[in-house]
Amino acid sequence: MESTKKVRGMQDILPDAHLYHTFLKKVFRHELRKNGFKRITTPVLEHKELFTGALWMGTDIIDKEMYNLVDRKGRELVLKPESTAPIMRAYIENDMQSDPQPVFLYYVEPHFRYDRPQKWRFRQFFQIGAEIIGESDPILDAQLIYIGYKILNKIGLEGEFKVKINSIGTAKDRQKYLEELTSFYENKKHLLSPEALSKLESNPLRLLDTKIEDEIILANEAPKITKFLKKESKEHYTKVKEYLDILWVPYEEDHKLVRGLDYYTHTVWEFVDNSGRSQDAFWGWGRYDMLSKKIGHSDEIPAVWFAMWMERLADALLDRGIKIKNKDRIDLYFIQLWDEAKKIVLPLTLEAREAGINTLASLGTPSLKAQMKKANRLSARYVVMVGVMEATSGIYQVRDMIAGTQEEVKKEHLIEYVRSKVGQNGLDFYCPAKDFLLKDE
Amino acid sequence: MESTKKVRGMQDILPDAHLYHTFLKKVFRHELRKNGFKRITTPVLEHKELFTGALWMGTDIIDKEMYNLVDRKGRELVLKPESTAPIMRAYIENDMQSDPQPVFLYYVEPHFRYDRPQKWRFRQFFQIGAEIIGESDPILDAQLIYIGYKILNKIGLEGEFKVKINSIGTAKDRQKYLEELTSFYENKKHLLSPEALSKLESNPLRLLDTKIEDEIILANEAPKITKFLKKESKEHYTKVKEYLDILWVPYEEDHKLVRGLDYYTHTVWEFVDNSGRSQDAFWGWGRYDMLSKKIGHSDEIPAVWFAMWMERLADALLDRGIKIKNKDRIDLYFIQLWDEAKKIVLPLTLEAREAGINTLASLGTPSLKAQMKKANRLSARYVVMVGVMEATSGIYQVRDMIAGTQEEVKKEHLIEYVRSKVGQNGLDFYCPAKDFLLKDE
Repeated sequence: MESTKKVRGMQDILPDAHLYHTFLKKVFRHELRKNGFKRITTPVLEHKELFTGALWMGTDIIDKEMYNLVDRKGRELVLKPESTAPIMRAYIENDMQSDPQPVFLYYVEPHFRYDRPQKWRFRQFFQIGAEIIGESDPILDAQLIYIGYKILNKIGLEGEFKVKINSIGTAKDRQKYLEELTSFYENKKHLLSPEALSKLESNPLRLLDTKIEDEIILANEAPKITKFLKKESKEHYTKVKEYLDILWVPYEEDHKLVRGLDYYTHTVWEFVDNSGRSQDAFWGWGRYDMLSKKIGHSDEIPAVWFAMWMERLADALLDRGIKIKNKDRIDLYFIQLWDEAKKIVLPLTLEAREAGINTLASLGTPSLKAQMKKANRLSARYVVMVGVMEATSGIYQVRDMIAGTQEEVKKEHLIEYVRSKVGQNGLDFYCPAKDFLLKDE
Repeated sequence: MESTKKVRGMQDILPDAHLYHTFLKKVFRHELRKNGFKRITTPVLEHKELFTGALWMGTDIIDKEMYNLVDRKGRELVLKPESTAPIMRAYIENDMQSDPQPVFLYYVEPHFRYDRPQKWRFRQFFQIGAEIIGESDPILDAQLIYIGYKILNKIGLEGEFKVKINSIGTAKDRQKYLEELTSFYENKKHLLSPEALSKLESNPLRLLDTKIEDEIILANEAPKITKFLKKESKEHYTKVKEYLDILWVPYEEDHKLVRGLDYYTHTVWEFVDNSGRSQDAFWGWGRYDMLSKKIGHSDEIPAVWFAMWMERLADALLDRGIKIKNKDRIDLYFIQLWDEAKKIVLPLTLEAREAGINTLASLGTPSLKAQMKKANRLSARYVVMVGVMEATSGIYQVRDMIAGTQEEVKKEHLIEYVRSKVGQNGLDFYCPAKDFLLKDE
């Protein structure tokens, strides 16, 4: 029956995978917050028109991959395939131009593309994105690259990637360049795949980011965009590189690094897997000063962004055997050998949790063996058994599941005993409610 | 132009509102984690069939409020209106029945309903939910109520709500009861609104949760379901109440508290606003042992859940003037009065952040006045001005924006100076990457 199956190409993120997602979210959120970014959430649904501006037509996202729907009032809506256009829409609609510029925003959002399902590519996928809107200073491009570079190093991928950068200038810079590029490829049509030939018609820039070996060789010989940059664009690019030097970010210039969408300008970059495991980028992106006009705003609003693929990065950590601490572990587990035991155990579990011990009580299975098996599967550290005898005597058996030893402990000393065994570092006293609530003075 | 407007009934969650969302997520996540719950994410899209099981037909959710779409392969999909059915689907599909039972899961998910937009009700809304699946012990019902009760007290709503509980027994218990209830109302048809008359046809239980005053009086007189509970159901309910007593949770029994969906069984509850501000529940829910069969699984899988409405609870805090600490504050702000100043300031901002100081640098505006205004709008605590003179002399002006005072500080002492001013408690040294990454020994 279809109803008990998930939709093809989509995934449930189960607790083990969530360890990695939670870790990545924490690291990104913290780094971005320290750098002045604030969280925004835009709806999953947007007007189709937001994405079908002139520029998007002819790209796979619009033509083949968008999830469309019509609501009960006939509105044409889509499940957002990405968040840059929605964030720019939100910036304009919520009049963030009146805030101090630039505005630093970040998001953690699901995106939807009807793509061919494959390794780490799902039809619903999560991205953490950072956008700096309202200012064109090249220092911002360098800062975003720096933040990404630092994060990759921090999460255990040091030495596993390189930073590639390029400038694709402005639309004006590209006019002359695209002519040269097209004529370069016109003479080599016999060497091109059918896919490349179609790019030559629709979007010659995309010929450069091919993954076919022969075409890479061709692309290396192709005219370089940086030679066609006008004064201002050249200056922008030079400054980005100067700032990267000041920030000690090593980079490699690659003229084959381009973007398929017309609204991109100046700096583009990617963090490319350098381990030989794949040719994929961990993530990247660039400056998009021309998007605001494409989605119908009167003015050009400068902006720069990055977005990382959560599933891609989680996968990269897993592939390398990088392990994340599981803070969901159970330190104390109560086995209840008798229905009335619950009334004794229930207040004890509360007391234990108040004392900072992560605690769980077994339920539903009467046999000791079955409950011990549960405790084992949950990797519980200490197990306490409560049956009729224990309830009467007030003396409990505490089992150390790692050492395999067992001790008798009086009920009134039980929590203190486990507390000292778990040790200060294992206790959890964090209380977000207390930490965040402001009390009137 | 439509493309620069959000979809009607949906909202952007902007940084100020995110303060409340982030706070609530942190509190729930932490409480749930301590109680053994683990995070799960299910896709936004599910097969329509998952929600249109026999039981859901005739409810507003299915008939009027669902966002439907057909994908490129003709699959009938919906944007999930809630997560209980998806979580049960995930439990079955991912064979969580082989894990130690019960399974404790929580989620933070957007849901979608084409509803009439009104205060705190949006067509995309977030819920934090907790589900305990695979075990029918009444202690679990009590535990979920307890966790919710504690959370509401912790987030500043102590004394602002009461806990209402009821038992609606099993489908069998309800058979006889529904007959009695129907015949009670059949004699009072002349007192009923058209809406109530239609409920009498389709779902007489729903007559009890009316908000019309005259109908509330009637409902108070109506037969009580608890009188129709068979032995096992009565026992379950009695135990829930016993455990609530042990847990010191004060509750009120209300026989008018019911659920419109057939798969609910035994305990239902709500945390009801008791402040006189509204009649709404903060949140609630109950046991749903019969859902698994409704969505096509061969066996009954016992389960109990709660789900809170993020927007509702954020609103309740705002309405009461409860304030949340803003950890995004800027402690150090650099004003740059000269383009070359950026090259001096950039490494300083990095150094400051390494020293735990939340730091931002102004950009793009050459005038001192405009930059001071920015610093003010951002509530920056300390402001440092860097111009040609400062760069040459190496002596900077540091302005305390609260005291309104200004001091001269040498460049090499600058970070240490601000550090000591901000004070240990204001510094941010937390590093999730270090905290979570497990290094090989």
